[in-house]
Amino acid sequence: MTAPGKDGWLAVVGLGPGDDRMVTPEVTDTLAQATDVVGYIPYVARVLPRAGLTLHPSDNRVELDRARAALDMAAEGRRVVVVSSGDPGVFAMASAIFEALEGRADWQALDIRILPGITAMLAAAAAAGAPLGHDFCCINLSDNLKPWEVIETRLRHAARADFAMAFYNPRSASRPGGFVKALATLLQECGPDRLITFARAVSSPDEQILTVALGDATPDMADMRTVVIVGNSATRRVGRWVYSPRSAG
Amino acid sequence: MTAPGKDGWLAVVGLGPGDDRMVTPEVTDTLAQATDVVGYIPYVARVLPRAGLTLHPSDNRVELDRARAALDMAAEGRRVVVVSSGDPGVFAMASAIFEALEGRADWQALDIRILPGITAMLAAAAAAGAPLGHDFCCINLSDNLKPWEVIETRLRHAARADFAMAFYNPRSASRPGGFVKALATLLQECGPDRLITFARAVSSPDEQILTVALGDATPDMADMRTVVIVGNSATRRVGRWVYSPRSAG
Repeated sequence: MTAPGKDGWLAVVGLGPGDDRMVTPEVTDTLAQATDVVGYIPYVARVLPRAGLTLHPSDNRVELDRARAALDMAAEGRRVVVVSSGDPGVFAMASAIFEALEGRADWQALDIRILPGITAMLAAAAAAGAPLGHDFCCINLSDNLKPWEVIETRLRHAARADFAMAFYNPRSASRPGGFVKALATLLQECGPDRLITFARAVSSPDEQILTVALGDATPDMADMRTVVIVGNSATRRVGRWVYSPRSAG
Repeated sequence: MTAPGKDGWLAVVGLGPGDDRMVTPEVTDTLAQATDVVGYIPYVARVLPRAGLTLHPSDNRVELDRARAALDMAAEGRRVVVVSSGDPGVFAMASAIFEALEGRADWQALDIRILPGITAMLAAAAAAGAPLGHDFCCINLSDNLKPWEVIETRLRHAARADFAMAFYNPRSASRPGGFVKALATLLQECGPDRLITFARAVSSPDEQILTVALGDATPDMADMRTVVIVGNSATRRVGRWVYSPRSAG
């Protein structure tokens, strides 16, 4: 085990949803000081190469290995930035870093900072109007890390609490069935007139925003680049936008 | 009624939680093009005065009047930025703007953009670790715009869904009783060992982060500058941080 380097540090940063104009100066400045950038391939690809900077792109679903490699380098005295899209604390790398710290007092002594970013649901909401303008919840629909029954229970409680809802990872080619079930549950709980917004590739040149009534929503309206937002019972359209009034509920 | 000016626009922007290094370049660039900045006094105070820019600070609780004034100026051809702290779509000015558009086809035809920002709960979570690293909800505890019974119902559903929870506006001098009731409900639903984080004045020089067990939490740990985060049943401490594991649930 290497003793922590005196000058090493680890920053876990959010690059926002895609548009570089949504990357905070804090994150940009931190990247400028890094010796190493670690992350999933498409996120590392957003960092400009330069002399003195080593890029460490890795595949998806290796979050814990990636976290340990990053912590190892920081312990060796390197200045390491772990990049996530969106915000690192929302279904991204921050939790994996803390999981990797369990039982490792040496790593816990490191200089570790989490730098927030614009998470996809807030960019999606802004592009659509203000559908999250009242109490809301945020659910990862991927059942990689939890059983579907937990998702189902959360959807029903969210509907009965009259939360607006934002869904990350609604649908992948490998498990398209989950989103079909989610739509059926939502239709049952919220009725066919509830508004649902599909925000695809937000802040990129491919951005597409589609709002329909839940009764007209079909599973193919979402893919893994889509954030889905379901309104609360008061969410409404005005002009080309959708919003939740401040006094809803 | 004035016909919409050809070159007028309205941008509703988020200034983040307080640290200027968390203001996105998109927001900074938009402010640089503005002729008028509208908003609550302390947020307008964050915008540097310059020639050609008129600042319109206004008091709290006049959101609809402020929205209409901003839309009126945009319709006259001015380039108007409405500033919110955090993200404009989370308990801030975006919903008020859309409420003001109701029934006003002329205003609906304007160039209106919502530009996201770092909302307080994500900066608070980052400062504390990653307590929102799994499914979570976000509730405004102010009962200015909804009856307390709605808040109570949402707290119970959130607890039974095992959401982590972020609370905005937990407590004010004028109505301190709400947060006392909220803590009692949470204690009943989640038990005394559940972790709760009080994040005060996040990203400012006054920042204070305190995590305690729910059984040890007291109402005076929060004020109106505090974001409160309650973990889910799996949320735990590691080193000086608190986080929700990715596989919680």
